[in-house]
Amino acid sequence: MAIVEVIIIVLFGVFVRITNPANLSTMFSTVFPLYQDMNVMMLIGFGFLMAFSKSFSWSSVTYTFFINALIIQLYILLNGFWQRAVVDGFNSSNYYIYINEKTFAYALHASASMFVCMGAFVGRVGPLELLIISLVHIFVYTVNEVICIYKIQAFDVGGGMTVHTFGAYAGVTASLLLSASSRPTGKPKSNYFSNLFALIGTLFLWMFFPSFNFGYGYTSTTQYTQTQVVTNTIISLTGSCLATFITSAYLKEKFTMSHILNATISGGVVMGSVAGIIVHPSAAITIGFLIGIVSTVALHFLTPYLEKKFGLYDTCGIHSSFGLPGLLGGILSAIAAASFNYPTAYDAYGLSSTNFPFYDTLVTHPFRQGGLQIAATFTSLGFGVAAAIVSGILVRFVHDFGSNEIFNDGVYF
Amino acid sequence: MAIVEVIIIVLFGVFVRITNPANLSTMFSTVFPLYQDMNVMMLIGFGFLMAFSKSFSWSSVTYTFFINALIIQLYILLNGFWQRAVVDGFNSSNYYIYINEKTFAYALHASASMFVCMGAFVGRVGPLELLIISLVHIFVYTVNEVICIYKIQAFDVGGGMTVHTFGAYAGVTASLLLSASSRPTGKPKSNYFSNLFALIGTLFLWMFFPSFNFGYGYTSTTQYTQTQVVTNTIISLTGSCLATFITSAYLKEKFTMSHILNATISGGVVMGSVAGIIVHPSAAITIGFLIGIVSTVALHFLTPYLEKKFGLYDTCGIHSSFGLPGLLGGILSAIAAASFNYPTAYDAYGLSSTNFPFYDTLVTHPFRQGGLQIAATFTSLGFGVAAAIVSGILVRFVHDFGSNEIFNDGVYF
Amino acid sequence: MAIVEVIIIVLFGVFVRITNPANLSTMFSTVFPLYQDMNVMMLIGFGFLMAFSKSFSWSSVTYTFFINALIIQLYILLNGFWQRAVVDGFNSSNYYIYINEKTFAYALHASASMFVCMGAFVGRVGPLELLIISLVHIFVYTVNEVICIYKIQAFDVGGGMTVHTFGAYAGVTASLLLSASSRPTGKPKSNYFSNLFALIGTLFLWMFFPSFNFGYGYTSTTQYTQTQVVTNTIISLTGSCLATFITSAYLKEKFTMSHILNATISGGVVMGSVAGIIVHPSAAITIGFLIGIVSTVALHFLTPYLEKKFGLYDTCGIHSSFGLPGLLGGILSAIAAASFNYPTAYDAYGLSSTNFPFYDTLVTHPFRQGGLQIAATFTSLGFGVAAAIVSGILVRFVHDFGSNEIFNDGVYF
Repeated sequence: MAIVEVIIIVLFGVFVRITNPANLSTMFSTVFPLYQDMNVMMLIGFGFLMAFSKSFSWSSVTYTFFINALIIQLYILLNGFWQRAVVDGFNSSNYYIYINEKTFAYALHASASMFVCMGAFVGRVGPLELLIISLVHIFVYTVNEVICIYKIQAFDVGGGMTVHTFGAYAGVTASLLLSASSRPTGKPKSNYFSNLFALIGTLFLWMFFPSFNFGYGYTSTTQYTQTQVVTNTIISLTGSCLATFITSAYLKEKFTMSHILNATISGGVVMGSVAGIIVHPSAAITIGFLIGIVSTVALHFLTPYLEKKFGLYDTCGIHSSFGLPGLLGGILSAIAAASFNYPTAYDAYGLSSTNFPFYDTLVTHPFRQGGLQIAATFTSLGFGVAAAIVSGILVRFVHDFGSNEIFNDGVYF
Repeated sequence: MAIVEVIIIVLFGVFVRITNPANLSTMFSTVFPLYQDMNVMMLIGFGFLMAFSKSFSWSSVTYTFFINALIIQLYILLNGFWQRAVVDGFNSSNYYIYINEKTFAYALHASASMFVCMGAFVGRVGPLELLIISLVHIFVYTVNEVICIYKIQAFDVGGGMTVHTFGAYAGVTASLLLSASSRPTGKPKSNYFSNLFALIGTLFLWMFFPSFNFGYGYTSTTQYTQTQVVTNTIISLTGSCLATFITSAYLKEKFTMSHILNATISGGVVMGSVAGIIVHPSAAITIGFLIGIVSTVALHFLTPYLEKKFGLYDTCGIHSSFGLPGLLGGILSAIAAASFNYPTAYDAYGLSSTNFPFYDTLVTHPFRQGGLQIAATFTSLGFGVAAAIVSGILVRFVHDFGSNEIFNDGVYF
Repeated sequence: MAIVEVIIIVLFGVFVRITNPANLSTMFSTVFPLYQDMNVMMLIGFGFLMAFSKSFSWSSVTYTFFINALIIQLYILLNGFWQRAVVDGFNSSNYYIYINEKTFAYALHASASMFVCMGAFVGRVGPLELLIISLVHIFVYTVNEVICIYKIQAFDVGGGMTVHTFGAYAGVTASLLLSASSRPTGKPKSNYFSNLFALIGTLFLWMFFPSFNFGYGYTSTTQYTQTQVVTNTIISLTGSCLATFITSAYLKEKFTMSHILNATISGGVVMGSVAGIIVHPSAAITIGFLIGIVSTVALHFLTPYLEKKFGLYDTCGIHSSFGLPGLLGGILSAIAAASFNYPTAYDAYGLSSTNFPFYDTLVTHPFRQGGLQIAATFTSLGFGVAAAIVSGILVRFVHDFGSNEIFNDGVYF
């Protein structure tokens, strides 16, 4: 690991520079608070969400901390590399990677995809295994991101495809592959206070999801798109929150904490790709409400079924709270793009290409863009599965984690 | 509940639209971080402040989460409706409700008033009772808000009247009415860690109160008013924090955790109406220090007295930490308005109508404005009591919560 | 204490005013979110970091809360006084102290220096002793700050000298002096959940350190310097985080929680002075990684050695996590200033005096500025030691804390 870090430092020395002052936009005061919100989502949000069991809370939080720092560094290098390799082409006179005011917000999207992935098997791997999975993950993440955004040119403002779909199916695949060697004999035990800590995680994820969906992807952000993405995400999240409570109460006559911890945020996940396309708040509230029902029902029936049938020990129910919402969000973004209705939207909202960057594309080629949205969704799913298979093979060589060590902090602390 | 949500979705479809890009101001980068601060105040602040007892921490936090999502949706619809009914008048050609960059900040003020209310009886109602109280509450809140701000034209930048006075007296009344059917036999039990969680809640409320007081109400926000409201609120909060510790140590020779949890934030509550009027930091520090003493003394003597004498089981001591500070803040805002001294203020501060939106009104009609501040304060108090009486009657019909279930999470989890 | 507060209120009345609207810049929307981040660092960050032991978590968090409020008030008065006494000169026609949009961010730097100090002996002093130490501390802090920034004219954007070096060596000295009267007989006991609370503290400090380093000190902040300071701090923090985990695992074959809690943030401390000078990200990552190793090794070997040899009971290992990084950061800032390479830097980065405020000084007098950086570092160290000696003498007169009360909340709650 120390060697990896020395290599990173040398590569930073050779390639990474702060961007030229002349190329900095005036976005800093807008982007920086969003970056800090996303920062809280990573370390407090994901960290404590995964700490719901008192037997591996320390591992969940500290490994999240470690992996987050590593991914920020690697994202800068790898994104710079792939952007040259796939998009810009290499240029012998200027081989620098430039850091600007948006770089770190992008890097945290990469972190998020790793934490979504990690949620599917947290507690079942040791730090060395996790390190290998993370290295493979960030490598494949940066390839997939460049392909989906720059080659396929999908609209994915909040990383519905590149973060959630990619991360969740990578995690599910890795979780399945791990079952061959480390199959848990019991459930992770949570207690009263560990669930309160996990609630802190869920609440910060829920609160700051609008920052996450908005912090990314626009080449030019306008007042309108800011308001649009934030409004759609907030409204969708209120829908999924209410749907989770209603569905949970209906299913068991009581509220189930694991539903509240996981399904409430599905309304943010599902908006990942679609928040920048839909312009009607009632679409956002409807989608959010329905995905909350889907996610809660899936947590209740599908997650135990997959565990029993396929040995998918999905620790945090990632498939139900991130996988399905990400996938359905990608498909919805295709439908939304294909059905983008030019004259109606224009009349009702005063949209134009100056205030709505996707306008021209959506008006001229709605069906083509719909197809690209589908293509990018399944490209992300495929790359996610591929990343997990590669890391699953590599992990076999280290395997530092016995079955009796599952869900147990004490081994490494 | 599912039916309520379907109705909300349909109403969103018919009436709610994102505002026209041409009507968006450039305030997004200023307002959004404030909105996120307020978001943290709602779910972490109020949620965990009410979680001080380990026997109903889960209920406090999760019900806060649920109610917050519901109120955001209902506020958009109801505020839009009442604004048309009372202020703008209905217009057959344009019946839309527009969401802009400030809408969600306003909605969280409505949430806050419900959580202030809820603090007076949390742990003594079940989710169905709470749902009914919330529906009545938001309905009356939006009426009162439109009347106080647009009809009476009171200055209430931080919701001292519409949020705190309204919410606290609604809660106190509801708490009294509930005593008929669900009278607690003991105190809620707190333990070492549940009080630490509650401290997280208090600290976030204390830290982000400046964002709460500033996020609201100005049609035009100027550099000066931003600095004025934030400065007054921060300074008042430091005063109330110090006063609480000093008074608490004086009263019992030790610090009392319930004083620290509740009275320290009274300096933010008291600034709700007055922060936008006073221009002198020494007024803010004096008011904050005195209200901290008042609130701590009230928590120590008045809250137990009211419980013993009138059966007012005020779980979080809301009357002392939000009710009195809100009420006194309203009266202070009347005094401040009436004593606004034109030439002195002008000379010392360089104020004018361009940098201080209240300037013209305060200079030309200080006494009239003072009267309006008093009127709006007691209007809010009255509407709060009325809301609680209505919901108190409705709650009798469901009553899902027996006396033996008080302060006990286990019934619903 | 009540008397102190009355004096503060009177002094506010006589001297403190909100600055004239004409003198407010348009920085509010940039500065306020940074202020709120720093606020969270003070009360949640430092408060909970020091709450790692369940026997004095309440004291740590509540005393932090109290001291923070006191220091904000006193900083405004004392900084105003010393700025007149040392820099501007007294002026009979305008004796006011003006509060502007940056005042409270500066005040929180003063709070931070007190909490760094407090970490070296938290749990071993009662509230009265702490009050005396705080009063002396803020008095000396404001002198040192004015001397370092305005007289010596050191570059110290994030308070590497004035906050961390000053605070840490004040704390270490005070801790040593306290050992004469209150020498702990055992270690503070932490448990599973108290360490999770402390992790929340560490994570918020780690996340918001870029806001802390950037919120201060520039007369004119440019797009470039914002990006520069934030980038350097984030990258350095990722380095120190990784170095801590790697070193901790190497030292004990397991991760040690106290290393993770304290050494991970050393990458932010070390950037305090140097983040505004270096322009190369690889310097930041290298410095961060090395200081993480230094800090972890120091926590593992040096802290126990100093305790055994000199009776330095450094509760939070402040000397290793803030003292050494602050001191080394000051020395590094001297080296960076002295080696500032004019033509190279200019060519590669397009820097000029308009986008980089330190540019002219660093280009014309690099060696002189290097000397000034060293001078300010050791001035801060000296003032810190002096402050602790004065408060150490004064504390002898009250001594409200017996040896048997060490690390025990129950005495005051």
